[in-house]
Amino acid sequence: MDAALAELVDELPDGVVVTDPDLLEKYRRDRAADPRAAMPLAAVRAESTEQVQTAVRWAARHRVPVVPRGAGTGLSGGSTAVDGGIVLSTERMRTMRIDPLTRMAVVQPGLLNGEVKAAAAEHGLWYPPDPSSFEICSIGGNVATNAGGLCCVKYGVTTDYVLGLEVVLSDGTAVRLGGPRLKDVAGLSLTKLFVGSEGTLGIVTEATLRLLPAQPPTSTLVATFASTLDATGAILAITSAVRPAMLEFMDRTSINAVEDMLRMGLDRDAAALLVARSDSQYLAAELEMKTMAAACEANGATEIFETDDATAGEAFVVARRSAIPAVERRGTVLLEDVGVPLPRLPDLVAGIEAIAAAREVTIALIAHAGDGNTHPLIVVDPADEDMARRAELAFGEVMDLAIRLDGTITGEHGVGRLKKAWLVDQVGPDVLDLSLRIKQALDPMGILNPGAIFS
Amino acid sequence: MDAALAELVDELPDGVVVTDPDLLEKYRRDRAADPRAAMPLAAVRAESTEQVQTAVRWAARHRVPVVPRGAGTGLSGGSTAVDGGIVLSTERMRTMRIDPLTRMAVVQPGLLNGEVKAAAAEHGLWYPPDPSSFEICSIGGNVATNAGGLCCVKYGVTTDYVLGLEVVLSDGTAVRLGGPRLKDVAGLSLTKLFVGSEGTLGIVTEATLRLLPAQPPTSTLVATFASTLDATGAILAITSAVRPAMLEFMDRTSINAVEDMLRMGLDRDAAALLVARSDSQYLAAELEMKTMAAACEANGATEIFETDDATAGEAFVVARRSAIPAVERRGTVLLEDVGVPLPRLPDLVAGIEAIAAAREVTIALIAHAGDGNTHPLIVVDPADEDMARRAELAFGEVMDLAIRLDGTITGEHGVGRLKKAWLVDQVGPDVLDLSLRIKQALDPMGILNPGAIFS
Ligand SMILES: Cc1cc2nc3c(=O)[nH]c(=O)nc-3n(C[C@H](O)[C@H](O)[C@H](O)COP(=O)(O)OP(=O)(O)OC[C@H]3O[C@@H](n4cnc5c(N)ncnc54)[C@H](O)[C@@H]3O)c2cc1C
Ligand SMILES: Cc1cc2nc3c(=O)[nH]c(=O)nc-3n(C[C@H](O)[C@H](O)[C@H](O)COP(=O)(O)OP(=O)(O)OC[C@H]3O[C@@H](n4cnc5c(N)ncnc54)[C@H](O)[C@@H]3O)c2cc1C
Repeated sequence: MDAALAELVDELPDGVVVTDPDLLEKYRRDRAADPRAAMPLAAVRAESTEQVQTAVRWAARHRVPVVPRGAGTGLSGGSTAVDGGIVLSTERMRTMRIDPLTRMAVVQPGLLNGEVKAAAAEHGLWYPPDPSSFEICSIGGNVATNAGGLCCVKYGVTTDYVLGLEVVLSDGTAVRLGGPRLKDVAGLSLTKLFVGSEGTLGIVTEATLRLLPAQPPTSTLVATFASTLDATGAILAITSAVRPAMLEFMDRTSINAVEDMLRMGLDRDAAALLVARSDSQYLAAELEMKTMAAACEANGATEIFETDDATAGEAFVVARRSAIPAVERRGTVLLEDVGVPLPRLPDLVAGIEAIAAAREVTIALIAHAGDGNTHPLIVVDPADEDMARRAELAFGEVMDLAIRLDGTITGEHGVGRLKKAWLVDQVGPDVLDLSLRIKQALDPMGILNPGAIFS
Repeated sequence: MDAALAELVDELPDGVVVTDPDLLEKYRRDRAADPRAAMPLAAVRAESTEQVQTAVRWAARHRVPVVPRGAGTGLSGGSTAVDGGIVLSTERMRTMRIDPLTRMAVVQPGLLNGEVKAAAAEHGLWYPPDPSSFEICSIGGNVATNAGGLCCVKYGVTTDYVLGLEVVLSDGTAVRLGGPRLKDVAGLSLTKLFVGSEGTLGIVTEATLRLLPAQPPTSTLVATFASTLDATGAILAITSAVRPAMLEFMDRTSINAVEDMLRMGLDRDAAALLVARSDSQYLAAELEMKTMAAACEANGATEIFETDDATAGEAFVVARRSAIPAVERRGTVLLEDVGVPLPRLPDLVAGIEAIAAAREVTIALIAHAGDGNTHPLIVVDPADEDMARRAELAFGEVMDLAIRLDGTITGEHGVGRLKKAWLVDQVGPDVLDLSLRIKQALDPMGILNPGAIFS
């Protein structure tokens, strides 16, 4: 162990700093499994803001890169370990306080999204942001990526629920941004700047989250279609008529992958399946469900199933949420996260199908359809080198397509390391330069998550 | 006219640059009527993004301060003219495009909030942010201050509706941030950083706004109380039980000022009046109204009036919205905008009453109560110098009080020039330094709205 590292071990309590290569293995990659992941010098499993500060001060002194890490479920290589760097894991920072009167939760970053949801539910409250990974991803990671999910079509994304943050900056200073106030415009909107900054501006050590009263009972509609074009037509018809509380899409490949895994009787021949939800109440719910069903019918739905039984409805939501792991059973997956303005959704879906055909690769498609945010999952046989090469090309082409359609290369997973080559094509050199000036101002030595977002 | 100014006049079409001192008078101050307002060199009434760029490039070349100005309804001296500077007015940038399919509006900054609302309504759509000043304030000013309003207790503030911006930076470069995508996490959250930056980071030349389907019919509840403590008790009881679509407060002084102006039969003896709204539907609305009425009763309401007639309800909302102009008839008003975490609202109200008594000044109190955001209006007889001095002291003491209660010096009006001396007390030197580093990175010459937010 070199002298600098020994210093770090020394400054922190026993067990906080991991240096054993076997133990370090699990801190090298997120779910994107970046093959270029380095072996970090160490992983720091900080237990408090002070320990995060100690580690960052040490890193600043020795100019050692710091890769923040939550639960490692990221899909863009945001927490890929870098050469000569440490991984700063928040997994041990797990306290939380719920205030039912103000409907707020003050949480440390290592708690899982599902744990916060559960604690809120005990008070009849609801923390809406619900990435499909909610049972395995951390609040810190959610804040750092501005995570989305299934209910955000009606209820917004993580940033809409973050009232305040405690953040450790690149020199080890801890600052409090925002706080337990529903409205606060004193000074620049720094809280919002740190949300979605993917660990490149600071390390989130606490978040004050806004909660809502428990979601009202939901009704669920499931519809199948003989073509993806019919399904996207229905999506546009639904979103322009009502505000669904969920509107999710699966194509034939993902339906079949999920059916292989769950055996729940999904229609394997359907070209596409939509899961839509209403959480309006009484007559309003009825009207919303009728409107959504009519929109599906008008767009040639082959079957429509409606239920206001929560368990029956939840089965289809679970099916949709299982799509990524289900498709992952079919090979290595290159996971996209492209989004477009809603009217361009049909063009995006058709374009992705064309890319899959031209590159002779399987692309399973799932989508948070109501937001125009799709996840094309490019399935690769790892033994087939030529396919891997074609898949890489398709990966870039899908992003190029989204940019051409006035879309985004990432709707919710973040740029991380895997998508950064495309960022400039989307935002242009001036905006990239603007971002870099902020990065430079806040992290002049470039020690915070180097290689993420920015090259 | 000096040579530099002649250059500016030359570079822009006839009539864009105003230099006549008589005409310049109306560009010197916002509604806070800052007595230290300078006479600007010129006002540039830009008609396009390109003209804004021309003016900013000229200003950068000659290091001339640029004060952006919307409709001048600001209440914190954010658009007070500065010595040797120009005022950049967006009043002529007034085009807009509504897309009903994606529920978005692309608007130039000079349009008034009420004009955007009206255009959206023609398509059955709704732009929620509703500052009391909605008929007279501009969208650019709303974005720059992250304006709030009456419905934000349920529907959020301006930033929640801004999907994209076009901004002219301090060197005259125009950039596009975000865009017509419901979800987009590509790169840093720059759109959100510019919202609320009060013209210190760039000039907003276009905004892409998210619209909602028209608000459902509302029911209105009006309750009076014999003490402000009862009223704040009712506010906490309401907000912890339901999500009202509006929850506004007026104290005796403001009730009487409004009654003097509108003669609508408000109870002049009431110590406080609440206006609450539900926009839930059918049985849900009934339940919500019942719950709110019960909360008022339990807290000693002296009278409760309920209506689901839109016109009858609107009269009380208009009364609340008229409070600022009504109180302004009683003298010069020093307008506060302090907010606290909801449970501290009773302490804030009591503390303000104590300050008014100790300093022997009248402080009328109105509030967006459901957000904990209050507007203490300190009424000053301009002829009474001693009172003016006491009012100044009270002005600072109210902010000190809010800070002590873990609150904010500004919930929605912005720091501007009038509140900046208190900013550091609220956010602390580290956060101020962080903000300054961003300001410095984006406006190294400090030409954008110098003196606003930062000293
Ligand atoms: C099956 C599956 C489904 C998914 N579905 C969704 C979905 O529906 N919506 C969605 O948005 N995402 C989804 N994801 C992606 C992922 O779960 C989210 O990006 C999540 O927010 C990552 O959280 P994490 O704790 O795992 O973060 P990590 O993967 O550990 O880190 C993610 C990024 O955040 C940074 N970071 C982590 N913690 C901190 C901190 N405390 N301070 C500063 N930076 C930090 C890291 O450096 C990295 O850049 C899914 C993932 C999987 C595997
Ligand atoms: C009677 C009354 C009631 C009010 N009620 C409310 C309320 O309920 N909620 C609320 O939030 N506010 C309220 N206000 C305050 C005011 O209306 C808001 O702050 C509004 O957003 C200001 O808009 P404006 O166009 O008048 O901006 P201005 O006063 O012209 O400017 C405000 C700030 O924004 C900057 N700015 C303006 N345009 C741009 C641009 N295009 N680019 C960059 N910077 C720009 C200016 O430099 C200044 O710092 C009220 C005001 C009055 C007079």
